[in-house]
Amino acid sequence: MTLEQDVFVKGNSMEQVGVEQDVFVREYFVGVDLGGTKMLAALVAYDGSIIAREEIPTLAQQGEVAVLDRLGNLIEGILAAVPGSRSALRGIGVATAGTLDTANGVVTFATNLGWRDVPVAAVLSDRFACEVRLENDATAAAAGEWLAGAGEGAPDCIFVTISTGIGGGIISGGRLIAGVNHNAGELGHISIDGNGPRCLCGNVGCLELYASGTAIGRRGAEHVRRVAGGDGDAAGALTRLAGGDPDRVDARLVAAAAAEGDAEASGILREAGRALGIGLVSILHLLNPQVVILGGGASHIGEPLLGPMREVIEDRCLPSILSPVRFVTSALGSSAGAVGAALLMSRDGR
Amino acid sequence: MTLEQDVFVKGNSMEQVGVEQDVFVREYFVGVDLGGTKMLAALVAYDGSIIAREEIPTLAQQGEVAVLDRLGNLIEGILAAVPGSRSALRGIGVATAGTLDTANGVVTFATNLGWRDVPVAAVLSDRFACEVRLENDATAAAAGEWLAGAGEGAPDCIFVTISTGIGGGIISGGRLIAGVNHNAGELGHISIDGNGPRCLCGNVGCLELYASGTAIGRRGAEHVRRVAGGDGDAAGALTRLAGGDPDRVDARLVAAAAAEGDAEASGILREAGRALGIGLVSILHLLNPQVVILGGGASHIGEPLLGPMREVIEDRCLPSILSPVRFVTSALGSSAGAVGAALLMSRDGR
Repeated sequence: MTLEQDVFVKGNSMEQVGVEQDVFVREYFVGVDLGGTKMLAALVAYDGSIIAREEIPTLAQQGEVAVLDRLGNLIEGILAAVPGSRSALRGIGVATAGTLDTANGVVTFATNLGWRDVPVAAVLSDRFACEVRLENDATAAAAGEWLAGAGEGAPDCIFVTISTGIGGGIISGGRLIAGVNHNAGELGHISIDGNGPRCLCGNVGCLELYASGTAIGRRGAEHVRRVAGGDGDAAGALTRLAGGDPDRVDARLVAAAAAEGDAEASGILREAGRALGIGLVSILHLLNPQVVILGGGASHIGEPLLGPMREVIEDRCLPSILSPVRFVTSALGSSAGAVGAALLMSRDGR
Repeated sequence: MTLEQDVFVKGNSMEQVGVEQDVFVREYFVGVDLGGTKMLAALVAYDGSIIAREEIPTLAQQGEVAVLDRLGNLIEGILAAVPGSRSALRGIGVATAGTLDTANGVVTFATNLGWRDVPVAAVLSDRFACEVRLENDATAAAAGEWLAGAGEGAPDCIFVTISTGIGGGIISGGRLIAGVNHNAGELGHISIDGNGPRCLCGNVGCLELYASGTAIGRRGAEHVRRVAGGDGDAAGALTRLAGGDPDRVDARLVAAAAAEGDAEASGILREAGRALGIGLVSILHLLNPQVVILGGGASHIGEPLLGPMREVIEDRCLPSILSPVRFVTSALGSSAGAVGAALLMSRDGR
């Protein structure tokens, strides 16, 4: 760690998360979570604490030049708000989806952004005169939770994010498992039914097809469609909340209906939770972690989803592997990817 | 590495594997693979080369005292045959099945030996005045293949042993994945069908139920039983080779029948191979290795089993994960566990 400059940070006017006045900080990193809908930037200290953060819409339809320009402005704003942070900036970590050429800092292909071969690292490093490191968003979130969140201090830790898809990251023996070409951790694309339906990824019976937010919403929409077609029982809370329109059903609506006692909605969440349990037992048997961290939007559904998951795990997991493992929810929430990208940048090559 | 004594080894009279005359060797390790049927001991150099080895029946029914006494004699014999090896002995590594308390060197429970709380390390370390380290047999075999066999030089490597059961080990980022309490690598107990039959381990639809040597033999026996019961086509090679007796069918017999063109036997191997492929795609998606090493007795069946496995993997695996991976067969064969146990001993705490 270089220590050429110590920066004395006073409180600032931006959104502050657990920052104390008069913190003695030596180095700063910026973490970015660049998504198809929103982009979030955070100023992060070496210990993972968030000094400031801000989120704005991505507006991907404006094209890559405009998006990267607005991302640069977002970072500028955060740095300007924290005195001394610009000169103490040691690097920028960018978490994003899609196929990445991490060695050259290029987003080679990203459907959510509509990007092909965009040199993100070069653009940001020209503007901020510092190193820039790209990382897969789920891997970055796993690193964030492990280094400064719900998995802090656990050398063996699995992070699962249940959202539009299912992704995650694996930490084993105190290290992030990368794989030979940086593609490890595709937790959503393990098969829980070798004779199941084909996934877009090419595999069959992928966990993501049964337990993602998308899968929960799709099954809810199918139910509303059946009820609207007169095929099924009288309309329950799910159909009512959707106003009878299958296209309005998503995982959030299914969870709301289940909370109102809709049996069909509860059953959908139970089946998704059981699928999560089936997938997690396989992951536990392979990796024997001490912490499993559940994150992503759908993890907020809580017990109606996670109860059935735990039931399957308690029923099926080898006792020697089950007994040391704790299941926890994400501590960093939507900041996990940005914090992880910043911390991976800070530890790069050290 | 301690270098207090250099030993000049001349050729010896025992079985020799690739040993050259007048090799300049500094340290020796003994590796043991202690199984329910046979026990194998090998004298191993720091680079993993086998200087001498010998295998004898375990005769587990004689009880733990007799078995450990005969194991000690086996090791004595190997050391006596290689001049200078006893004084250059730096440790003994023991690979064995069952539940192990590796910290205390105790086999806490092993069905194949009928053992409960047997202090293997204490007994051998008293007799040979050196450190003794226990290791799970599949983990040891994985380490052996990785450090001195088919996976040598590959930092990301999966070892799968297809035998009575299915086991294995995971190497990622140049390190053996142990898990929080040393139980990682249960490759045979990942679920390939979450609604499948219950496994003895407690999980459901385990890979081992579909693709182990036992599973292949069981399906072959079921076929012979159906034919004997008049339910099915005319008897083929499998029924003939078994003399019509389902109890005589094992994986080797199924493979022999398939080699004679028995369609039923070929189908059994194809289904087992496809199950292996389904399980391996999940493992590849999680860990993104560069080498997959297939070992164990059933791996010798070759193409009739491994061809369908590769077909499923090529059909279903993410291209970015499939492209860097090589599939190879074990280089050390039945010595992998002993070599791995010796090498893990040699690297213990270094």
